[in-house]
Amino acid sequence: MKMYLMTPGPTPVAPETNLAMAAPIIHHRSPLFMEILGEVRADLKYLFETEQEVLIFAATGTGAMEGAVANTLSCGDTALVVDGGKFGERWTELCNVYGVKAERLAVTWGHAVDPKEVAKMLDANPAIKAVFVQANETSTGVSHPIKELAAVTKGRPGTILVVDAISALGGYSIPMDKWGIDVLVAGSQKAMMLPPGLAFAALSPKAWGFVKESKLPKYYFNFSKALKSAEKNQTPYTSPVSLILGLREVLGKIKKVGLDKIYAHNERLSKACKAAMKAMGLELYSKDNPSTVLTAVLAPAGVDGQKVVAELRKKGIWIAGGQAEAKGKIFRIAHMGFIDTVDLLGTIGGLEEVLTALGYKVQPGVGLKAAQEVLAKEAAV
Amino acid sequence: MKMYLMTPGPTPVAPETNLAMAAPIIHHRSPLFMEILGEVRADLKYLFETEQEVLIFAATGTGAMEGAVANTLSCGDTALVVDGGKFGERWTELCNVYGVKAERLAVTWGHAVDPKEVAKMLDANPAIKAVFVQANETSTGVSHPIKELAAVTKGRPGTILVVDAISALGGYSIPMDKWGIDVLVAGSQKAMMLPPGLAFAALSPKAWGFVKESKLPKYYFNFSKALKSAEKNQTPYTSPVSLILGLREVLGKIKKVGLDKIYAHNERLSKACKAAMKAMGLELYSKDNPSTVLTAVLAPAGVDGQKVVAELRKKGIWIAGGQAEAKGKIFRIAHMGFIDTVDLLGTIGGLEEVLTALGYKVQPGVGLKAAQEVLAKEAAV
Repeated sequence: MKMYLMTPGPTPVAPETNLAMAAPIIHHRSPLFMEILGEVRADLKYLFETEQEVLIFAATGTGAMEGAVANTLSCGDTALVVDGGKFGERWTELCNVYGVKAERLAVTWGHAVDPKEVAKMLDANPAIKAVFVQANETSTGVSHPIKELAAVTKGRPGTILVVDAISALGGYSIPMDKWGIDVLVAGSQKAMMLPPGLAFAALSPKAWGFVKESKLPKYYFNFSKALKSAEKNQTPYTSPVSLILGLREVLGKIKKVGLDKIYAHNERLSKACKAAMKAMGLELYSKDNPSTVLTAVLAPAGVDGQKVVAELRKKGIWIAGGQAEAKGKIFRIAHMGFIDTVDLLGTIGGLEEVLTALGYKVQPGVGLKAAQEVLAKEAAV
Repeated sequence: MKMYLMTPGPTPVAPETNLAMAAPIIHHRSPLFMEILGEVRADLKYLFETEQEVLIFAATGTGAMEGAVANTLSCGDTALVVDGGKFGERWTELCNVYGVKAERLAVTWGHAVDPKEVAKMLDANPAIKAVFVQANETSTGVSHPIKELAAVTKGRPGTILVVDAISALGGYSIPMDKWGIDVLVAGSQKAMMLPPGLAFAALSPKAWGFVKESKLPKYYFNFSKALKSAEKNQTPYTSPVSLILGLREVLGKIKKVGLDKIYAHNERLSKACKAAMKAMGLELYSKDNPSTVLTAVLAPAGVDGQKVVAELRKKGIWIAGGQAEAKGKIFRIAHMGFIDTVDLLGTIGGLEEVLTALGYKVQPGVGLKAAQEVLAKEAAV
């Protein structure tokens, strides 16, 4: 049976990327590999929309999140954590582990943080050294207003904005330098169309200033050491050679197509998917800023979201269920990375069938028709 | 030009392993992937010769080394570091980062640690909670006497033995349970015949007791969390799916061939290589316990070891030079993992030519003849 990964990570990897990674191993200190790393470094800056170095780690995104805490703060520091879902909680856990006092700004699941609330908290407590947030909260399908948050932290020399863009970067534009993001963290296995195993972090000059003051212990995720190595086209420890070969292939493609077109493609899929849900009488779980890389949907009354997921899997279609407090209540369809209209229409069709089988009547084709109308209107990219 | 990786990591990956990793991504929470992880977990125990869980991390070996420190000790603890090469130094660096007092037992490069010295230091300072050592010190080609060191720490309930076997495990037998090793750390890119990107750690019940007392911060490399996930056939964060598929392929092969045969194969190559060096009038750099996975050789008088490496590269043959204080003085030929007699003979032939070109006269074929005599005598495995 074919397996359609419509989950928010890992996402499908293109066959040509898989073949690029199947090339014989080359030595990570060889001129050939260093040349490849040089190419990758330049292309990562394009993707991150930054002039800063994008650090590469053999790890999954969580490793770079840990690095973002351990490299910028010290024990006893205070941080503000925007917590509006499962991944917001991770920032709090990380702060707790490192003895950083986390002031939690709780956001109701399904909602986006209000930048004014953040400004108010920063005004009330000037000791707050970092604001931790997700660009796209994968557990709720909500995009937090990063541009507006950056506007809040920009004028405050004592506070940095740290953004987990693991499920967002490459999915929609997050111009790091233009907006003034201080630390931008990403991973390989979502919109970047690679297997899991690479984590990334880029830091603004302001954030590098924080690194100098930071006293928390770090070794494998030592950002300063990684920067020094990167400038020599190396990584501090053995480079994950095969994944880097895949990264070069993917970044080359992204650059050739162009970020604008990729983001327009994702938006087109997102609009079509959301129109289909509406036509099927379903409600989005994401009340504010529904993400363009993910559609989070409330399961209809009487239908278990987890059952929707389980039944679709029997058709080879993998979407995600809800996590923690949203478990059973929602299901989530990702449309980022190596996903096209064929995947999306097949998923919508499968969903119509599954919902009907689970007792929620859907007129056959009503979701598909709505999606198709959007696709017809919005030019293919 | 073909590229022959005779370096001590990364080592060549078999084409069938590369193809296994080129399979479509499967979801890391799917029953199919969990079944694969279950298989891998059992096979890792076979390789580590342990009944304990072998934890898997998306990282290179250094990450698991950091985890070994951060999960077993607390700030202010004292540790003994066997420092007889570049990788011994890494343990000291890690201790320093985490506020662990490192009592350094300096071993002259090229020599193995004397277990009696370790016992003496432990007697003199009962506060020492951990002994950190390399199984195979890659920078010098020396195997430290792990069995004897374990005999020293075994009877001391307050001290654990932590072994970095990154360049040894899968190359020669290191029976964790039988010898009584407390923490055994490994990586994917050496004798395990995989690309870099996976790190492993296994802990004895005694070491797990230390984990309970440890107060150092850890998150990504949290061993307790990894153990809890492993028991459910999962990893705490997104699994490096493609590398795990490669791991399954490799471990299946290792189990089928059998560890004894693999170790005998490596020993045969090692003997042939060392005989060739001797026949060419060269001296081993490793004075004690020359490793069976690596042959470290003193460059002859007047010949720069780095030049030997550089000239061989022009023939497509990649060996390693010396590091730090051994730079220029030595060269190192690895024979572990997916390496056979063809690779070895070709390397010896290339070396004969290169040394002659660099002014050190070698009678053509003298090294090859000596190697071939060993290969003829020792049955192929």
